[in-house]
Amino acid sequence: MVIWVNGDLCDADAPCILAGDRGLTLGDGLFETIALRQGRVRHLERHLARLGRGTRVLGLPTVEQEARRAVNELLMASPMEQAVIRLTVTRGSGARGLTPPTDPRPTVMAALAPMPPAAAPVLAIVAGRTRRNEHSPLAGIKSLNMLDNVLARAEAVERGGDEAILLNTAGRVAEAATATLFVDLDGIIVTPPHDDGALPGIARGLALEAGLAIERPIAFDELQRARALALTNSLGVRAVVALDGVSLPPGGGEALAQRLRRICQA
Amino acid sequence: MVIWVNGDLCDADAPCILAGDRGLTLGDGLFETIALRQGRVRHLERHLARLGRGTRVLGLPTVEQEARRAVNELLMASPMEQAVIRLTVTRGSGARGLTPPTDPRPTVMAALAPMPPAAAPVLAIVAGRTRRNEHSPLAGIKSLNMLDNVLARAEAVERGGDEAILLNTAGRVAEAATATLFVDLDGIIVTPPHDDGALPGIARGLALEAGLAIERPIAFDELQRARALALTNSLGVRAVVALDGVSLPPGGGEALAQRLRRICQA
Repeated sequence: MVIWVNGDLCDADAPCILAGDRGLTLGDGLFETIALRQGRVRHLERHLARLGRGTRVLGLPTVEQEARRAVNELLMASPMEQAVIRLTVTRGSGARGLTPPTDPRPTVMAALAPMPPAAAPVLAIVAGRTRRNEHSPLAGIKSLNMLDNVLARAEAVERGGDEAILLNTAGRVAEAATATLFVDLDGIIVTPPHDDGALPGIARGLALEAGLAIERPIAFDELQRARALALTNSLGVRAVVALDGVSLPPGGGEALAQRLRRICQA
Repeated sequence: MVIWVNGDLCDADAPCILAGDRGLTLGDGLFETIALRQGRVRHLERHLARLGRGTRVLGLPTVEQEARRAVNELLMASPMEQAVIRLTVTRGSGARGLTPPTDPRPTVMAALAPMPPAAAPVLAIVAGRTRRNEHSPLAGIKSLNMLDNVLARAEAVERGGDEAILLNTAGRVAEAATATLFVDLDGIIVTPPHDDGALPGIARGLALEAGLAIERPIAFDELQRARALALTNSLGVRAVVALDGVSLPPGGGEALAQRLRRICQA
């Protein structure tokens, strides 16, 4: 497997990142997870737009051209039909400490990974150990600071689940560790708003634009009495079949997931 | 400058990290910033104890022996009298996604940097753009997820300061972007508790153990009417001379800093 790093192709088993890269030392960077299906890069413009918003929040220079080149050259070097493209952008190397270099030279990298089974039903667990910080600008961008999500997922697995749902610091529902949450509340499909800590997901945006769902705050007890839950991210749509070990009404999650799939995977 | 990475010495200008290292892709790791003064590594046991607590929170194997070896071999290769040692531990490489490898092989690295001027007085700014998440286990460990701190510091610099003070999500005082905050409230020296989002700093621990300060929640308006403020971290103690552009009573911060220095730099 090869990885594209700042214009060079690098073997995945060979070191290609400096130890002083701020992406590594401080989590000072962004990423995108992009689906490649039938040899087509899915929703690249939306991913690049979100990446662009992230670079503005971080005060990074524009990396759009490098990101396009990374994806193109990676796929030329490793032509595939189905895969996950992980695009990573960091502020590049810097001296020790928080203060960014005045003239940052971002690291741009792209890697391929196998596409996971998108339709597998989800046993969701509401994480008790951590909360999503809706007060942070990081809630609105796809930053490299994913350790809360890693810990939430690990908790879900420990408790017999396979994906975590994160509440925000006010106790309202924010999102899943790697997905947007859609909730059927009395027949209305609802997803948490950005102000409650939901990442502006690509599939989420498609569902909202299509009018399939609305944004509104979701209390924890509303989640518990939901008819159906489904999760979306750029790799697919999944029905939630159990929440905290309690089965949800059969078929509801899959029906919701199918409605979302028609839009998100169109 | 050389860097110690997993037993090898690597030139700082040469790539020595895999693109798939979870420290880079997910911020899945920890660090310590350790002072070297008069050729002596300061408070190494306390740093290793905190690192050990961090590895337990993350479910990483113990890395104490590797960390000791990293520091020793780095200093043998680059003998210095005064420097900052940055010790970084990540979960090592993994496949795409949050799920950790079942048998993680951590990356351990150590690097040297020049010691910054420790006694420089601080113009502190209370960050308005982000908050410290006291609900996250990351608040209790020194993780690689430092981007909130990077953004808070950048905001402080934009607003004419040089260090940021972070409030937590409840609006109480948590800490500075790279330091513990000590506040003189009517003659009592107070520092925020862990439950409010304060990192268990090494200098902080020394000041508390010596009885110089107590832990208790600090409201934002208490901060604003404080007689004196000072910041500690492993690199030194600094007086705060202005808060949000308003000068503090002259001499108070430096007097507090001197009391802290006698303990923290003993």
